[in-house]
Amino acid sequence: MSFLDRIALCRRWDPAAYRPFVIAGRRMGRVRHEVARRLSDFPRVFEVGEDAVVLNPVLGDADSRSRAVEEALRPLAEAGELGGRWRREAYPVVQRWGEAPLMIIDRGLVPDLGLRAFGVHLNGLVEGPEGLQVWVARRSKDRPSAPGKLDHIVAGGQPHGIGVRDNLAKECAEEASIPAELAARAVAVGALSYRCERPEGLRDDVLFCFDLTLPPEFVPNNTDGEVDEFFLWPVERAIEAVRDTDDFKFNVNLVILHLMLRRGLLNPDDPDYQAVVEGLWLGD
Amino acid sequence: MSFLDRIALCRRWDPAAYRPFVIAGRRMGRVRHEVARRLSDFPRVFEVGEDAVVLNPVLGDADSRSRAVEEALRPLAEAGELGGRWRREAYPVVQRWGEAPLMIIDRGLVPDLGLRAFGVHLNGLVEGPEGLQVWVARRSKDRPSAPGKLDHIVAGGQPHGIGVRDNLAKECAEEASIPAELAARAVAVGALSYRCERPEGLRDDVLFCFDLTLPPEFVPNNTDGEVDEFFLWPVERAIEAVRDTDDFKFNVNLVILHLMLRRGLLNPDDPDYQAVVEGLWLGD
Repeated sequence: MSFLDRIALCRRWDPAAYRPFVIAGRRMGRVRHEVARRLSDFPRVFEVGEDAVVLNPVLGDADSRSRAVEEALRPLAEAGELGGRWRREAYPVVQRWGEAPLMIIDRGLVPDLGLRAFGVHLNGLVEGPEGLQVWVARRSKDRPSAPGKLDHIVAGGQPHGIGVRDNLAKECAEEASIPAELAARAVAVGALSYRCERPEGLRDDVLFCFDLTLPPEFVPNNTDGEVDEFFLWPVERAIEAVRDTDDFKFNVNLVILHLMLRRGLLNPDDPDYQAVVEGLWLGD
Repeated sequence: MSFLDRIALCRRWDPAAYRPFVIAGRRMGRVRHEVARRLSDFPRVFEVGEDAVVLNPVLGDADSRSRAVEEALRPLAEAGELGGRWRREAYPVVQRWGEAPLMIIDRGLVPDLGLRAFGVHLNGLVEGPEGLQVWVARRSKDRPSAPGKLDHIVAGGQPHGIGVRDNLAKECAEEASIPAELAARAVAVGALSYRCERPEGLRDDVLFCFDLTLPPEFVPNNTDGEVDEFFLWPVERAIEAVRDTDDFKFNVNLVILHLMLRRGLLNPDDPDYQAVVEGLWLGD
């Protein structure tokens, strides 16, 4: 089935093109060889070897690491010389959400260094006599990332300094005008992970997934310019789009597969069932 | 948190005590060194080397493999000389449910050869004004496996030759007298896997998980002698038992953690959240 093609797309990267990025003795990211060569311009920050890029151990705490990396790389990012733009959003450098961060870094540098990032995705659902329906957004054609692609009603990055649920509520307000009391009914339903090459660099993401059953009369309204239109689709139509097309943004496919697994929309006797389960979590 | 202790228990085995069991060029199982020595009594069936036990490649199809292995090992199993009893239940030898089996083998031999097995577990739920409740079974004290432990209302092995859903319906009838029309409402909610040493040998299992919301007036009734009593517990009590005790059968803990993840009963901001997600699937 082509569900597995969507998973494969979220695992497509070439390990031979990268070397580990090590902080405090731990591999926290992966750096393309050509990026590593750029980093060798900053020997007091990055110790660039053939086999690894090591953050200078002299930088002994999160504050000094964060400052040194920003000082070195912000000018490059702002000049457009790296894969990412400077985003003015602080991300923690951790392997697991909730750990003490080894440093804080701008979101725009995360894919250049192949660091793990976190996000929230919300399935906006309507359950009624016609069966399960799902709200689908079409991303604005002028977005730098995935223009025109189908998306969740609410999805966003998970910055440092705000809890997952509070971040979800914030995104609910910005992306779909979902009021706080409605957003509070969202149910945390698990997490998934993937690692793949994207135009901005290596994405190594964990997505926290939520289901929110919306009242039938609720209509989402985007306020941050990210969305052109919203559709309310029978879940079967979204499943067909996942199976047969690349219309959804790459990672949204995984969240819909996760929904399908949880809601009995895939049959355990399907020979690909186990591959879908396995495909929703990628270890180190 | 001690949720992670329950996961660790389901991953406890010593790789150094085993060598691979290879069929048709694929590692399909793992055999303890002392079991390997027993298998060397059957050189026309098992090619026992220091690094692996290989099923004789002369046995070129599933039928001939199945017959040869039964002929060699059934007498040992029936004489109680292996970890497992002879169960008279046919299991398929596959890595993923739904693949063409490399052979068919009695369930009792599966842990001795460290082969992958499959099972079904059903969360029997009651949803009402008092919140979510879950039916819990206490296993008979005279069961050979996990006597007296807390269990799901319905759980069982997944034999060859019957679909997952049909097997679930059969177990629903036998273990809890759940009628077919009620069992048909069970929702497939995913799968989990683990690998650990148990008294019977190495368990390398994939469990298909189901949720069934039962009418409040339904009371389960066991007909196969596996269960002594049933309790209807607030889900919080089951969660406490998973967190604080070893009262549940080892693998039931994982299915309850899987339920917790799906139902918003774990907080994504908990630093152990990701470890729980990761802990519910174990790759090869």
